[in-house]
Amino acid sequence: MVKYAKEQKMANAIRFLAADMIEKAKSGHPGAPLGMADVATVLFSKFIKINPQNPKWFDRDRFVLSAGHASSLLYSLFYLLGYKDAKLSDLKNFRQLGSKAAGHPEYNHFLGTDITTGPLGEGISSAVGMALAERIISTRYGNDVCNHKTYCLMGDGCLMEGVAGEAIALAGHLKLNKLIAIWDDNQITIDGKTDIASSTDIKAWFKAHKWDVISVDGHDFAQIEEALAQAQKAVKPTLIAAKTTIGYGAPTKCNSPKCHGSPLGEEELDAMRMNLGWNYKPFEVPQVVLDDWLKAGSRCTGLAKDWETRAKAKGKEFLDVISGKLPKNWNKALQELKEKALKERPEVATRKASNMCLEAIVPNLPQLIGGSADLSSPNMTKVASSKTITAQDYNGNYIEYGIREHAMGAIMNGLALHGGFIPYGGTFLVFSDFMRPAIRLAALMGLKEVYVLTHDSIGVGEDGPTHQPIEHLASLRAMPNLLTFRPCDVIEAAEAWELALNQDSRPSALALSRQNLPTLREDIKENLTSKGAYIIKGSPAKRQATLIATGSEVSLAVAAHDELKSQGIETVVVSMPCQELFDEQPFDYQDKVLGNKPRIAIEAAAKFGWEKYVGLKGDIIGMDGFGASAPAKDLYPHFGITKEEVIDAVKVALKK
Amino acid sequence: MVKYAKEQKMANAIRFLAADMIEKAKSGHPGAPLGMADVATVLFSKFIKINPQNPKWFDRDRFVLSAGHASSLLYSLFYLLGYKDAKLSDLKNFRQLGSKAAGHPEYNHFLGTDITTGPLGEGISSAVGMALAERIISTRYGNDVCNHKTYCLMGDGCLMEGVAGEAIALAGHLKLNKLIAIWDDNQITIDGKTDIASSTDIKAWFKAHKWDVISVDGHDFAQIEEALAQAQKAVKPTLIAAKTTIGYGAPTKCNSPKCHGSPLGEEELDAMRMNLGWNYKPFEVPQVVLDDWLKAGSRCTGLAKDWETRAKAKGKEFLDVISGKLPKNWNKALQELKEKALKERPEVATRKASNMCLEAIVPNLPQLIGGSADLSSPNMTKVASSKTITAQDYNGNYIEYGIREHAMGAIMNGLALHGGFIPYGGTFLVFSDFMRPAIRLAALMGLKEVYVLTHDSIGVGEDGPTHQPIEHLASLRAMPNLLTFRPCDVIEAAEAWELALNQDSRPSALALSRQNLPTLREDIKENLTSKGAYIIKGSPAKRQATLIATGSEVSLAVAAHDELKSQGIETVVVSMPCQELFDEQPFDYQDKVLGNKPRIAIEAAAKFGWEKYVGLKGDIIGMDGFGASAPAKDLYPHFGITKEEVIDAVKVALKK
Repeated sequence: MVKYAKEQKMANAIRFLAADMIEKAKSGHPGAPLGMADVATVLFSKFIKINPQNPKWFDRDRFVLSAGHASSLLYSLFYLLGYKDAKLSDLKNFRQLGSKAAGHPEYNHFLGTDITTGPLGEGISSAVGMALAERIISTRYGNDVCNHKTYCLMGDGCLMEGVAGEAIALAGHLKLNKLIAIWDDNQITIDGKTDIASSTDIKAWFKAHKWDVISVDGHDFAQIEEALAQAQKAVKPTLIAAKTTIGYGAPTKCNSPKCHGSPLGEEELDAMRMNLGWNYKPFEVPQVVLDDWLKAGSRCTGLAKDWETRAKAKGKEFLDVISGKLPKNWNKALQELKEKALKERPEVATRKASNMCLEAIVPNLPQLIGGSADLSSPNMTKVASSKTITAQDYNGNYIEYGIREHAMGAIMNGLALHGGFIPYGGTFLVFSDFMRPAIRLAALMGLKEVYVLTHDSIGVGEDGPTHQPIEHLASLRAMPNLLTFRPCDVIEAAEAWELALNQDSRPSALALSRQNLPTLREDIKENLTSKGAYIIKGSPAKRQATLIATGSEVSLAVAAHDELKSQGIETVVVSMPCQELFDEQPFDYQDKVLGNKPRIAIEAAAKFGWEKYVGLKGDIIGMDGFGASAPAKDLYPHFGITKEEVIDAVKVALKK
Repeated sequence: MVKYAKEQKMANAIRFLAADMIEKAKSGHPGAPLGMADVATVLFSKFIKINPQNPKWFDRDRFVLSAGHASSLLYSLFYLLGYKDAKLSDLKNFRQLGSKAAGHPEYNHFLGTDITTGPLGEGISSAVGMALAERIISTRYGNDVCNHKTYCLMGDGCLMEGVAGEAIALAGHLKLNKLIAIWDDNQITIDGKTDIASSTDIKAWFKAHKWDVISVDGHDFAQIEEALAQAQKAVKPTLIAAKTTIGYGAPTKCNSPKCHGSPLGEEELDAMRMNLGWNYKPFEVPQVVLDDWLKAGSRCTGLAKDWETRAKAKGKEFLDVISGKLPKNWNKALQELKEKALKERPEVATRKASNMCLEAIVPNLPQLIGGSADLSSPNMTKVASSKTITAQDYNGNYIEYGIREHAMGAIMNGLALHGGFIPYGGTFLVFSDFMRPAIRLAALMGLKEVYVLTHDSIGVGEDGPTHQPIEHLASLRAMPNLLTFRPCDVIEAAEAWELALNQDSRPSALALSRQNLPTLREDIKENLTSKGAYIIKGSPAKRQATLIATGSEVSLAVAAHDELKSQGIETVVVSMPCQELFDEQPFDYQDKVLGNKPRIAIEAAAKFGWEKYVGLKGDIIGMDGFGASAPAKDLYPHFGITKEEVIDAVKVALKK
């Protein structure tokens, strides 16, 4: 008998399930699953540490299908390995409404799916975050409760995306030796052969980033096994470059873009059955192959059980951390900060306010893991109790991401997905664009993360329009399932941090000023930011107009309110730190806050979207174009965002 | 006399002007200008081909200051080289309101500024586009009228950004041998030494991307000169790795992040004068040094003059192309396409409609240069007359960007900035996020480009939420100076292409459907898309409600209109292919189109922003969250975007 005859059949089981799923759905990507079936078989039957009985086992190896279009490969594996929530009926329902077997792997659709993938490059980058998470938890709590690999399967597309380059560089720098990435080197992309767009020596490129590189024939089981065995002992992250044939087994469509993104078609699929000697009907897997796969799936049952015992013995902090439970009184110091601010009324930038919050939170929240894309000092994300993680010492709570916003976002996703961490990461608000695809994935997966986005308007000043966010607040607010906070003072900043860290399933973005702002809040009995908007100044009964403002413009609105009052005109100032939370309030609360008098919104940002609150008859004082380079104090009048403009707008509105 | 004594002084002139500018502004980044002054001196006094008398000379060498924070270096050079629009008074006004000497280099503030830079990584990536532009024009029209280098000066930050990696890979692949990038290897970033976040062997990394690499001491004039001389003859793009000291000359602050982003301070600056033997007052440059610089600036006056003669001889097409003038009748075939569509009423996806437009335009518009980020076939960006550019043959009009959306955006910027090209580039609308920072720079610089963004809604279907744009239309519309088109049929698609290519100073994004749509327009006398919105169906006089829709939802609105009419309810359907253009119409036109009856907006996208047109009392039929994986025909009812929902909404509105 041929040495790997069993594995050959196991791999073909994946191939035909995947191809059958795609054929039935009349939609999908057969090329990669057929090409990677052999590698996946060796990995999942001999190496990977998982427990299909408990897909969420904390110390499992993580598996990231960075080439997310190969979803049918993953779902076939789940079924074959005996995951209880992956039935043949699910596979038959591939890509249909309500099916767990979505077109691309969606986090938690199947419990075994460790991450949502599809946008290329994101998966490998988040895998770096997972591998880093493992090293930190392991260092903190011990090898006996956290000691696993992160495997990632990626295609050529993943490696062309810039975000992957950023993350791969950081993985090499941090010597994440338990990260094993497998490159499906099939030399085909949608538009043709990879050589139409790339001449990069991928192996040399990884080596330059300080990775180990092993080359194998991706259809030679012995080579694959040997490479994976070698990678287990690596002291650097490992790339296994697996030369494969896309659509392996499909007689006429293999090795061509034709099999990348369309079903093979009945005829080709029949021919593939002949070609690979697979005499079974669609979705049929012979019992002996099923048994071999089930056996593979139960390889680690004992390991998982032993781990449970050790984990329990490890104690409450560890169990709380890995289950995402916040320590009791985690926000006690934050409450004290609010009390102090109420009394002392500091005039600080909200980036500094956020820093004061972090000083209060970080020491009390071990799962909080910070960082910045080389802007720690201006973002003020680093605090006294922050300790930078290095390749020599993983026992820290702060990551120097380098000038790599996008990888920061994706790595934050990996840290959050791994479990044990609530990541926060800083950059300038304007550069949130660089990490937007990663923010979107966090929102889509419902991950608890905090983006610390400082320098949030033309208040940036001299650095000019490339550094002044305009449309960014609108574009973050437009994104589903993301909370965008723009606090006006220390107290709102503390409330925003409290809310962000109390979310269950959505990320938060904090937009924070570079410039100093006065303390405005008069009471802290209730977290008013939790309502999204509230009256911060003025009497609703007497109001003739409503001023709605956020962040740095709330103090401007208050100044206008005071001057108008001295002129006998009564207004109400609404601070609106979070539109999304305000939209979730009952209508009568919304009406009570906004009133039925003329409304004027003030925000040093694009006006886009503010009609939602001021209506067609309201006024918006904001930015119509890009910013400019000048001291901030000159820019506000230049762009007409001043107390005087607000006063004029109120008077015009009252005359209407 | 020491061999490079003259250059030493010329470099110090840059150093002190830069430091003085920053000191006076009390704001800026002295580290890089001080560190790069020696390299800049050799480059600008001995190699670069420019003509300060005509800063826009087409065949000049392009210079990209990718490390845009070193703007004071660039402005000092402009002044010293004798650019007429760069006076000492401009330098003294650094970073002040209205000054050409903005905080970061802004395209066309000084005429010598070839590109806006500041967001790291973008500059080097656009430099790749410029170098590519040179190769194409040179191949098409001859070496005698286009034969120049593209120089780029970049810091560590530029190289950490993913976009740079993408572009560098493509530059190596396309063998852009006239691209010379100089790396300011000072080993310092804002957060500290580069080794806190990077262990990458940058030189090996470039070599893996098929670049030549030369290492020099960035303060050794002879080494710099030799390297630049060698790079002139390269057959690959060249990296000159220049080991430098950040803040060179500042006695206590050099070689530290302290001099990166803050003025040196008077004391340090005085000490630097002592240290470098510079016995001159702030902004004072000794006449002999000024003369040396002016001489350097006039090195190529003769070359430039000769070029003018040759260029004129080259003929009209060349002169038109480089001056951005479109050929007469460039849109004749487009007009014919509209006529044909009006008659034949094809039912095609708007991505196909866009493809039909390109078939009509590309052969008639030599400056049009297309491409796609590995989605040529689904984006339908390639047409019969498209010819792919390769390293072996630059005589083409289509670029295979690979799976590198961000680099595509930045390279498109470089192509547009170089002159001679109107770039268009395709990807899925959802992946416009990956290239958003580059789109923003195009909008900020006012470049004529077209983003072909297909698969523009849940109409994507089975690929699921990672591939279905939701918030993207809103976030593109929120961006200043960008036109976002969402045509509903072939005729609107043709109108949108016409408008996009007739813009002078803004880019356009076309959002295009994957799914087929009927032809709706009944006349083509006028480009109605130019109004942004117009009544496509129904009688304004009789209307009881207004339905506003875009793209694929216009036909849905028309279907609802027809059914309501049969029930005796009169509505008007407004097609709104471009909100930005509608916002530019006179108020009375806007009022006439939208009417004063209840308004309902319908768009299979985030509702955010639609209140601008429907007001607080209107209704919006759109998406509240992310999409899902299923056939498109199942997703529309699933998310309540149907004819029936529109009909219900109208009836509810009429009852109010």
